Amino acid sequence: MSRKKMAGGITYPMGFSAGGLFSGVKKNGKPDLALILCETECLAAGVFTTNQIKAPAVRISQRRVRGAGIRAVIVNSGNANACNGEQGEKDAFLISEKLSVHLGCDPRKILMASTGVIGRPLNMEAILASLPVLVKQSSPFGHEACAQAIMTTDTRSKSAQTEGIVGGRTVRVGGIAKGVGMIHPQMATLLVFLTTDASVEKEALKSALLQASDKTFNALTVDGDTSTNDTALIMASGLAENTRVTRNSPEFQEFYSLVLSVCESLRDQLVRDGEGVTKIIRVQVSGARSRGDARRVAQSISRSLLVKTAFFGEDVNWGRIMVAIGNSGVRIFEERIDIFMGPVALVHKGVGLGPLQEEKALEVMKGKEITLRVMLGLGSMEAEYWTTDLSLDYVRINAGYKGRT
Amino acid sequence: MSRKKMAGGITYPMGFSAGGLFSGVKKNGKPDLALILCETECLAAGVFTTNQIKAPAVRISQRRVRGAGIRAVIVNSGNANACNGEQGEKDAFLISEKLSVHLGCDPRKILMASTGVIGRPLNMEAILASLPVLVKQSSPFGHEACAQAIMTTDTRSKSAQTEGIVGGRTVRVGGIAKGVGMIHPQMATLLVFLTTDASVEKEALKSALLQASDKTFNALTVDGDTSTNDTALIMASGLAENTRVTRNSPEFQEFYSLVLSVCESLRDQLVRDGEGVTKIIRVQVSGARSRGDARRVAQSISRSLLVKTAFFGEDVNWGRIMVAIGNSGVRIFEERIDIFMGPVALVHKGVGLGPLQEEKALEVMKGKEITLRVMLGLGSMEAEYWTTDLSLDYVRINAGYKGRT
Repeated sequence: MSRKKMAGGITYPMGFSAGGLFSGVKKNGKPDLALILCETECLAAGVFTTNQIKAPAVRISQRRVRGAGIRAVIVNSGNANACNGEQGEKDAFLISEKLSVHLGCDPRKILMASTGVIGRPLNMEAILASLPVLVKQSSPFGHEACAQAIMTTDTRSKSAQTEGIVGGRTVRVGGIAKGVGMIHPQMATLLVFLTTDASVEKEALKSALLQASDKTFNALTVDGDTSTNDTALIMASGLAENTRVTRNSPEFQEFYSLVLSVCESLRDQLVRDGEGVTKIIRVQVSGARSRGDARRVAQSISRSLLVKTAFFGEDVNWGRIMVAIGNSGVRIFEERIDIFMGPVALVHKGVGLGPLQEEKALEVMKGKEITLRVMLGLGSMEAEYWTTDLSLDYVRINAGYKGRT
Repeated sequence: MSRKKMAGGITYPMGFSAGGLFSGVKKNGKPDLALILCETECLAAGVFTTNQIKAPAVRISQRRVRGAGIRAVIVNSGNANACNGEQGEKDAFLISEKLSVHLGCDPRKILMASTGVIGRPLNMEAILASLPVLVKQSSPFGHEACAQAIMTTDTRSKSAQTEGIVGGRTVRVGGIAKGVGMIHPQMATLLVFLTTDASVEKEALKSALLQASDKTFNALTVDGDTSTNDTALIMASGLAENTRVTRNSPEFQEFYSLVLSVCESLRDQLVRDGEGVTKIIRVQVSGARSRGDARRVAQSISRSLLVKTAFFGEDVNWGRIMVAIGNSGVRIFEERIDIFMGPVALVHKGVGLGPLQEEKALEVMKGKEITLRVMLGLGSMEAEYWTTDLSLDYVRINAGYKGRT
């Protein structure tokens, strides 16, 4: 119990400490360098951007996460160190090398992530000078400082933790995340770092992270439409001394449900902090022939600017939803489609149910969190996607505050 | 020469008359019913939406355009008559049947198009009552009334005409178009109607329309991302008495270049009337392995909301362009990419050229029409795409003017 008061989020599981500080990368003086440390060697797993243009930090972590004995993750915000050519590569390596000296470990045991502006050289002097302070400062109480130091345009830090019985012992999972622009359109960097004290096999750890990401973060960001720096990492210290979780063991579901619950909490925090978001829309598609089909329809609706602006304008324009369904690339039959706005039936068998239902749907649309349900009437598979409205503030924020707004 | 003073646009070619009036579909009293008539039987060809949900007018025209002897196109604006179930089908058929009586021809010789709101029943009484007036009113001078009656949120009517020597005789091509929301995102209906007095074989006519659409209208609207009603039609009266244009004849290029030039003019007018557009961006991608690759990269850039908002904000954020390139799905090499903003080199071999070049690029971005060039350094194929910025007015317009804006 006393652990709860002391440590939380990323340092909630046993074995982890964390820290964050202002090194000099950001111009506004906000924290920009974060460290997650483990007292023992960890197993780790990662999910990375599918963008072909990857920052050096991503390429380095992709390689190193395959090995064992991970000790730390170093993250800088304010500069993505992407598209910086060879200098960018060298800089990323140098950071992990210098950090490894302070930690007394092999640099290959250090994972990395960066987020921020693309194509600007890293302020290496500032970062390198701050490393000893950051290591010294890191502690089980440093989780909030760490969560803040990975932020870019986030208005709030995002942190979650949970615990449960896995293989007869209490196991803890914690996490932090950053990213706001990634809620359709999704090109601002998403970073997620998870920790656990579970004893878990590499394959099981990877599988838990992949499955949980698929259900949460990847249902926000369209596959393939990711930034140069998107990264989700999990580290497992094994200090909980539970029966080792393997891929097909009964413990896997116990462990996975803890990871999923932390990811869901982080997902909710990310969505609510979306740039210029006034409404969150949960798009549920059912009655599809396959889960892939359901997902593609949900994606098509979630990406439609006309649907998103209609939500912002509280305009019960279900025709735009039909158009997005028809454009999904999935074989559908117009005359089988039903659409509900919250509990209100709007379209039945492809035809609108009239002004009275539209008035009721308008009341639903006035809410801040809206569930849109689409039934394709073709099968039994379903998928869920999260999107937001497209507001004037979205444009203002992303146009770069240059006065034309 | 006297023809020029009398007729223009859609009625410029010999044999065509046109008209437009307010029938009662639109609530604002603006023209909403248009007719294009030919005194002889025409050959016709069409390009239609790839959306799986198609308005009855689209399905009817798709079928009928395969036949010969087309006499007329009837178009209503203000109501798409889409997603109206069986009633929508019946209504569409009834309009062409009633019109065929007035024209004394088979209803299968009448093509149709609709544009406007989805899921509202057509005001059939108003339309049917207006048909005899519309037929009587149609004339070689009715081209402008016709161009206006197909408009929805367009602020200006779009009309073009040209003439040239084809197979030894003067041949004329005319056209009208409507559509403003379709410039990425592209779900508002695009309608294009072309007329010509060329004598031309069916396959050659079809090929000319397809090729010209591909270079113009389809380089605005992404394949597969179209409305329920998008339609481009061409009718050929044959009255120019030129040597018949066949698919592989030397005359084909002469004829095609006339069709293309009318389509290019209409494309330019469409782009300039885009909803909330403050800037037009011509995205030229070269150095690709295939034309398809070049096109996919150009599309990915053109669709990126972060790129579009950066243009609106006049923010020289070339990192967003790199991100869009990396997300295109095309195999690229970061270290070979060059980017130019107008004549200003911004990125060379994947690395930014620094603040001085960015300042120069900013001057280019302040213009209203900007050419963005991306060289992939992988081959010799290229493609061009047109997009616009994403402005506050875009959101205002598409949010439905409901006061939250």
